Amino acid sequence: MAEYKAPLRDMRFVLNEVFEADKLWASLPGTQDVVDPDTADAILEEAAKLIEQEIAPLNRESDEQGSQWNDGEVTAPHGFKEAYQAFCEGGWNGLGGNPEYGGMGMPKTLTAQVEEMLQAGSMSFGLAPMLTAGACLSINAHGTDELKEKYLPNMYSGVWSGAMDLTEPHAGTDLGIIRTKATENGDGSYNITGTKIFITWGEHDMAENIIHLVLAKLPDAPAGPKGISLFLVPKIMVNEDGSLGERNSLSCGSIEKKMGIKGSATCVMNFDEAKGWLVGEVNQGLACMFTMMNYERLVVGIQALGAAEMSYQNAVEYARDRLQSRSPEGKKFPEKAADPIIVHPDVRRMLLAMRAQTEGARAFSTYVGKWLDITKFSDNADDKKAAAGMVALLTPVAKAFLSDKALETTVTGQQIFGGHGFIREWGQEQLVRDVRITQIYEGANGIQAMDLMGRKVVANGGKDLETFAAEVQSFIDANSDDAAMAEFIQPLQAEINNLKDVTAHVIDQAKEDANAIGAAANDYLHLFGFTAYAYMWAKMAKVALAKLDSGDEFYAVKLKVARFFYQRQLSETQALSANIKAGSSTLMELDADLF
Amino acid sequence: MAEYKAPLRDMRFVLNEVFEADKLWASLPGTQDVVDPDTADAILEEAAKLIEQEIAPLNRESDEQGSQWNDGEVTAPHGFKEAYQAFCEGGWNGLGGNPEYGGMGMPKTLTAQVEEMLQAGSMSFGLAPMLTAGACLSINAHGTDELKEKYLPNMYSGVWSGAMDLTEPHAGTDLGIIRTKATENGDGSYNITGTKIFITWGEHDMAENIIHLVLAKLPDAPAGPKGISLFLVPKIMVNEDGSLGERNSLSCGSIEKKMGIKGSATCVMNFDEAKGWLVGEVNQGLACMFTMMNYERLVVGIQALGAAEMSYQNAVEYARDRLQSRSPEGKKFPEKAADPIIVHPDVRRMLLAMRAQTEGARAFSTYVGKWLDITKFSDNADDKKAAAGMVALLTPVAKAFLSDKALETTVTGQQIFGGHGFIREWGQEQLVRDVRITQIYEGANGIQAMDLMGRKVVANGGKDLETFAAEVQSFIDANSDDAAMAEFIQPLQAEINNLKDVTAHVIDQAKEDANAIGAAANDYLHLFGFTAYAYMWAKMAKVALAKLDSGDEFYAVKLKVARFFYQRQLSETQALSANIKAGSSTLMELDADLF
Repeated sequence: MAEYKAPLRDMRFVLNEVFEADKLWASLPGTQDVVDPDTADAILEEAAKLIEQEIAPLNRESDEQGSQWNDGEVTAPHGFKEAYQAFCEGGWNGLGGNPEYGGMGMPKTLTAQVEEMLQAGSMSFGLAPMLTAGACLSINAHGTDELKEKYLPNMYSGVWSGAMDLTEPHAGTDLGIIRTKATENGDGSYNITGTKIFITWGEHDMAENIIHLVLAKLPDAPAGPKGISLFLVPKIMVNEDGSLGERNSLSCGSIEKKMGIKGSATCVMNFDEAKGWLVGEVNQGLACMFTMMNYERLVVGIQALGAAEMSYQNAVEYARDRLQSRSPEGKKFPEKAADPIIVHPDVRRMLLAMRAQTEGARAFSTYVGKWLDITKFSDNADDKKAAAGMVALLTPVAKAFLSDKALETTVTGQQIFGGHGFIREWGQEQLVRDVRITQIYEGANGIQAMDLMGRKVVANGGKDLETFAAEVQSFIDANSDDAAMAEFIQPLQAEINNLKDVTAHVIDQAKEDANAIGAAANDYLHLFGFTAYAYMWAKMAKVALAKLDSGDEFYAVKLKVARFFYQRQLSETQALSANIKAGSSTLMELDADLF
Repeated sequence: MAEYKAPLRDMRFVLNEVFEADKLWASLPGTQDVVDPDTADAILEEAAKLIEQEIAPLNRESDEQGSQWNDGEVTAPHGFKEAYQAFCEGGWNGLGGNPEYGGMGMPKTLTAQVEEMLQAGSMSFGLAPMLTAGACLSINAHGTDELKEKYLPNMYSGVWSGAMDLTEPHAGTDLGIIRTKATENGDGSYNITGTKIFITWGEHDMAENIIHLVLAKLPDAPAGPKGISLFLVPKIMVNEDGSLGERNSLSCGSIEKKMGIKGSATCVMNFDEAKGWLVGEVNQGLACMFTMMNYERLVVGIQALGAAEMSYQNAVEYARDRLQSRSPEGKKFPEKAADPIIVHPDVRRMLLAMRAQTEGARAFSTYVGKWLDITKFSDNADDKKAAAGMVALLTPVAKAFLSDKALETTVTGQQIFGGHGFIREWGQEQLVRDVRITQIYEGANGIQAMDLMGRKVVANGGKDLETFAAEVQSFIDANSDDAAMAEFIQPLQAEINNLKDVTAHVIDQAKEDANAIGAAANDYLHLFGFTAYAYMWAKMAKVALAKLDSGDEFYAVKLKVARFFYQRQLSETQALSANIKAGSSTLMELDADLF
């Protein structure tokens, strides 16, 4: 198995050359004094070193060993505790955190790259910092000053980790029907009682304390999603002076045996009148969670990208080493028993398919990061508002399209290994099992598709979609006289026209057919994803063309992968558009009991 | 998890109504006295009973437990030995075997249905009978009478099982470079020395003896694939009187830890001057293997179908039971906390996608079985020859398209379960892990695609493809006046025209571009698969339309699934055709060291 090498050159390309992060950061009041290209570069280098050397090497064994549950205590796999310590000591937990409470305040465009490395190194390990960062976001956005002061510094340092407690056995997608109860104690605290499942790193031995954010209902709360409140429930109580007090009445009942991410503990958490504190307003729990959701959902897409990148690195190494059969052009290495399989067109097709997707995903997630940075760090209200619309529109795509394509990519990376891909020691099958969860958790991809099609497109008459399309159109217009760009610009024009056309079609259908949104959703999300990647690849091709004579082969390669994407992947939009236009009738005609 | 219920109604539909097996069997000299619809029906019923009750219930635990290796001995998972005994006692091992040696001589059209049930019940278990049947085919076709008499009866009865020993650590796809050696002993026997890997059920405790078919090279053999011979190497020597003698010098060095089919043992087999006997002619080993290959490859497709069917059954049950959110049309079950998720268009899309693929696969594999039956049981030389061409053409599609789509199907079936799909106890994730191997073994799907595109299409100028296209065309012509069929016949005409057009395009390209075949292969195989399924669904729709007024809802349902396939899946051919026409240039331009 290949050793993970962080794709720093590609990350710098996306950051500095495609999205000109230096200009973005210099333009935003919140980042201009915090980060510049040199700082960013140093951060990327340091993160790569730590992850390549300390974290990635643990991943394979963590899958075999898993987290272990013993009478309520959970032990992380061998080496995780020490690696977590090293990660915390490097300050990585607080990389994007609020500087007022000890965070480093780095922009998402940058932290996204570090997140990709971390998740490529080990998804199981990476989930702990990821959940902590998510919990911090909610506390920072909605918690009282007292809560922030009491909890954030130790969470940014990683001394305490965070967990999100949403799902219950009967309530996953539909959080409106949760049963966990909260009752007021009269002293500002609440008692929380109920059972939560699928709680990632809900219990473990890596951090001194675990801060749970728990959704629960007050006795008089309205039914459904409008009656949910969010509570901060620490595993160990925190005294006034910040020291740890007695154990709170919550416990881990068991951990799940699952398909992948076995190194991480997926916990059943039992709350038995556990003490908690309200985060945000009463009955506003879902809104408070959603503050965090856009970040988390993007990170899930980035997680999937990380695993896909690792699978690609393994596959390329194997394809260069494995000797099997001869090139159709004749022997390439007559002195060897056979040619390396990378000579075969179909192996190259698989490798290029992987690469076009991972590099498209890296550009796209950084692009979404750019909009998140503007919403967070700009002081211009109009810019913030427009950026928020883009974040809302693009986030479900970043979560679901990246993860759907990452499953394909890791399956392809496994396929290149033939029978060896099915054997555990090679690691390729683990990446498939691990990445599979990214399509499921943090809102299953079908839910992301409904969110995009229903809430983000149809509900506002396609307004945000038009903003996105206008941006693409202005890129097209700016490059329409560039003959070298024509091979990208012409199809991109067709794709953006098609997306607008299909969007109008669904908006129209939805007026008279309640099922139109659900019927179109999944294919529409993929259509959007391919179109957005076409835009990403055109932008990357533009930069590559400008530097083609620089003597750096990197740009010629980039251009070739762009061509592959345009000529051999983008055609999928035709099929997706036809499916969408077929409407809902074939889906709805069959009675439920005849399935 | 749902209990497996063999889809007997669907199997009968395909057998009796779509392909009119009664007429086929009555027309073939080899089957007319062996099987009739009543016998076939009794066989299906009995197989279903045994598999539903004795085999399927073992599958989940076998995944947790795995086969166990201990100092060269392999113990099958709990219950496998007893179930194997029951399977053998029912005579199921010899269902398709040569009656001269104790087989039942049943046609493939029928055995294909039993194979589907067996593999749906447990792929890990099903591999033992599957490999035994494959070994018997080779021995029956190429072995001397002495070998046949000595080995086949005990293999058909299952007292002895069979194994195929092809792969070596450095030689998988490229068997021409194997190193296992055979030397003549002068008494008609050979000594075999070498190491084989990935040997399914190469060692176990379910049968009294294991008969290995081993590829090896004689000292003076030509280099490459033309220097390979096939040897029968028993685990335990068989005396003249048929009793078991001493142990042969072969042993299982270890078993693999793998992604799925964990119940089965995947063995490293060491042969240390093990005694063996030649099967077929010297240096004709690959040809002897290929006799068996068409059958085995079809069964791998059927295996994948079985797992996909099981995933569908689980998913439907879950989608009816799981309450989550409300129908977009408004509450369907106001008395419940939420509606069952089967009300949601996107869940229905997933279920219908699964169903359109599994039912298409069942029809297609039975269709290929029909051609296999004609090659085997007809006494008309022309018919046999034409059928052999169809078998050659369709087999790689049956292997690779069914398995590729089955992975998609089981992933979809897992997705319907949300987070629960990732948890092992629900069984859906096991089906994904198990079915994944069907894309890899028995010739990885990329190899199947090369076989189809190169050997079966381009090499003969598309002759067999024309035969297939002519059959579809005559179906179209026969139904062109049927207004009710127009919704299928018109697109089917477009699809078959497109397939011919794309085929001509690749044949043309291949004249001047050595990489054209490899560049087109994968997409072409999928294009062929979709087109063939369109034909299958049109045939099924035809039967369904004719019986729509029968009062049996089955036919109305079939018609609705046919419409779903045509309106929401078949569009994929547009994308595939565009990819193929893009040619090889984007695949070949990048230097191997720049990947």
